[in-house]
Amino acid sequence: MKLSELSTPALCVDVDVLQRNVERMAAFFRGRSCALRPHFKAHKTPAIARVQAAAGCAGFTCATLDEAEVLAAHGFDDLLIANELLDSTKTDRLRALADRARVTVAVDSLAGVALLRDLPLAALVDVNVGLPRCGVPPGGAVEIARAVADSHLQLRGVMGYEGHAMGIMDRESRAQTAREAMANLLGVADELRVAGLEVEVVSAGGTGTYDITGTIPGVTEVQAGSYALMDTTYARFGLPFAEAVRCLATVLSVQGGLAVLDAGLKALAVDHGSPELPDDVPASVLFLSDEHTTLATDAGFAARPGDRLWLRPSHVDPTVNLHDRLFAIRSDEVLDVWRVEARGYRASPH
Amino acid sequence: MKLSELSTPALCVDVDVLQRNVERMAAFFRGRSCALRPHFKAHKTPAIARVQAAAGCAGFTCATLDEAEVLAAHGFDDLLIANELLDSTKTDRLRALADRARVTVAVDSLAGVALLRDLPLAALVDVNVGLPRCGVPPGGAVEIARAVADSHLQLRGVMGYEGHAMGIMDRESRAQTAREAMANLLGVADELRVAGLEVEVVSAGGTGTYDITGTIPGVTEVQAGSYALMDTTYARFGLPFAEAVRCLATVLSVQGGLAVLDAGLKALAVDHGSPELPDDVPASVLFLSDEHTTLATDAGFAARPGDRLWLRPSHVDPTVNLHDRLFAIRSDEVLDVWRVEARGYRASPH
Repeated sequence: MKLSELSTPALCVDVDVLQRNVERMAAFFRGRSCALRPHFKAHKTPAIARVQAAAGCAGFTCATLDEAEVLAAHGFDDLLIANELLDSTKTDRLRALADRARVTVAVDSLAGVALLRDLPLAALVDVNVGLPRCGVPPGGAVEIARAVADSHLQLRGVMGYEGHAMGIMDRESRAQTAREAMANLLGVADELRVAGLEVEVVSAGGTGTYDITGTIPGVTEVQAGSYALMDTTYARFGLPFAEAVRCLATVLSVQGGLAVLDAGLKALAVDHGSPELPDDVPASVLFLSDEHTTLATDAGFAARPGDRLWLRPSHVDPTVNLHDRLFAIRSDEVLDVWRVEARGYRASPH
Repeated sequence: MKLSELSTPALCVDVDVLQRNVERMAAFFRGRSCALRPHFKAHKTPAIARVQAAAGCAGFTCATLDEAEVLAAHGFDDLLIANELLDSTKTDRLRALADRARVTVAVDSLAGVALLRDLPLAALVDVNVGLPRCGVPPGGAVEIARAVADSHLQLRGVMGYEGHAMGIMDRESRAQTAREAMANLLGVADELRVAGLEVEVVSAGGTGTYDITGTIPGVTEVQAGSYALMDTTYARFGLPFAEAVRCLATVLSVQGGLAVLDAGLKALAVDHGSPELPDDVPASVLFLSDEHTTLATDAGFAARPGDRLWLRPSHVDPTVNLHDRLFAIRSDEVLDVWRVEARGYRASPH
């Protein structure tokens, strides 16, 4: 099938760019004491997880139980749910998941340990290393770790996501913030060891810090996800990964300095700002509505109604999550259709 | 089933609030020369369309062919796709749709007319009445209308969405902007009539202007959608509709002035700002990540990990579009599970 046969909007992945990104990240971690555990939340697509597994990685990271269930159904069996689970309706599903895969979860409270304590899971103590989100403050980690060790959960170590470093564009400032966060996390790991508690895993990192956090002695795995498909936000960071995902859109209207495309808020996430056009299109994005992107056109804008243009997503994770399928392309050929199988939320009852 | 049995995040609709909203809007239009044509894009849920049809309405408005296909499959047969269609891969689907429903589309260019000219559809000339988006400038409408009349398309009239008025909170300014837009649109309608062209339909309006635009003589139908479920943005406008949709979330973590919920960017759209908490929860939303909402908690915040809280969406259309199901609730009972059947995009090949 040709690209021109796709109905728009269509979210497309350049398979060669994807392959290069995945290979570059895998190569970075080859032979290191720190492993790559790709974050599945960035694409939710088993076909892409297979590309990552083929290039080499130590299992996968997930943000939700739903994502872990999808990966387990595809035979992936070393899964970290790098998130707290406090929803009591999910414990039966967790138990069933643990029958098919080695599952590690994050805990940051006694309530979390109490809910999961009888399940055949491993656990990491999630430590707040500076991002205002989940994680026990460093001083409280030993108490949580002891509670894990006293339960049926297997204590494997600690995690701490330095997400507050991830968005700092200046590399040296980003590195400094990440190093401070990891000093906190490794300090907690030492405290646990001194207390006689098991710390085999120190899990952290992301696409913005993989080569900083991933080279700090003591960090055992990095949870990067965005590097595979990338987006315009990370593209500004000078990382060795290129944008592999773009949204194909049809021009609906061209009138008096405006042009309108048929992809809007329901095809492209805007939490990191509007998507962007390719550099060679003389226009800029004004705003998005549900099903439209309005462009301000410059001199030389030549596209007419019915023509097609690419939009470059600003934030890959929530953009892919809007789509049920990704189209795997090479130049103007559509090679495959990939299901974004972990999109959305499973519900009770199913 | 009880609310407590739902896995989170779960997007829930209070059926009584929905019913009152729908009834109020239907009652406003009863006996008027202007009809209500509810916009399906706001919820994409056939079960809600049935509530709207039962209360009384003149067919439905859609933003996409996909939405119209879903409504037609549920037996709704008077459908306006209030949007330009320039994607040539969709003409066969449009032809098939026209076999099962009376379908009207919007056109604003000769290219649009050329693509659709042999299809058994009706058409409205989409006029730009001030919103920088689709629509021919008023001076160009007669040319497009003539092209429609010279094709196999049936010319039915004009539409013009005064979306630039919709977000003005001050009622008098909003009304003034809407009236100016409608004066433009009705002026175009008169021009077409003088030129001997058919203008049976003048379609416009939305939830923010239904009682302004809907009472201007000559406007024949209003395309309001958000009124059924509402959101925090429209809730500030003093309209006679109440918020019927909320997202149930589980508290994952409570630490040092922060609390974190298990619903984030993939459960709640943020293009109109962050979701909000109910007024009686002493906390405020700091920011959203993919699967988290971080709250800054005030004195008296009593929720603990495992408890549940409601989040109130800021923009209903893209929020519902993130979910595959809506849970129809009354108090703590789950009465029904409704499929958001028109969520996402159908693709070629299917």
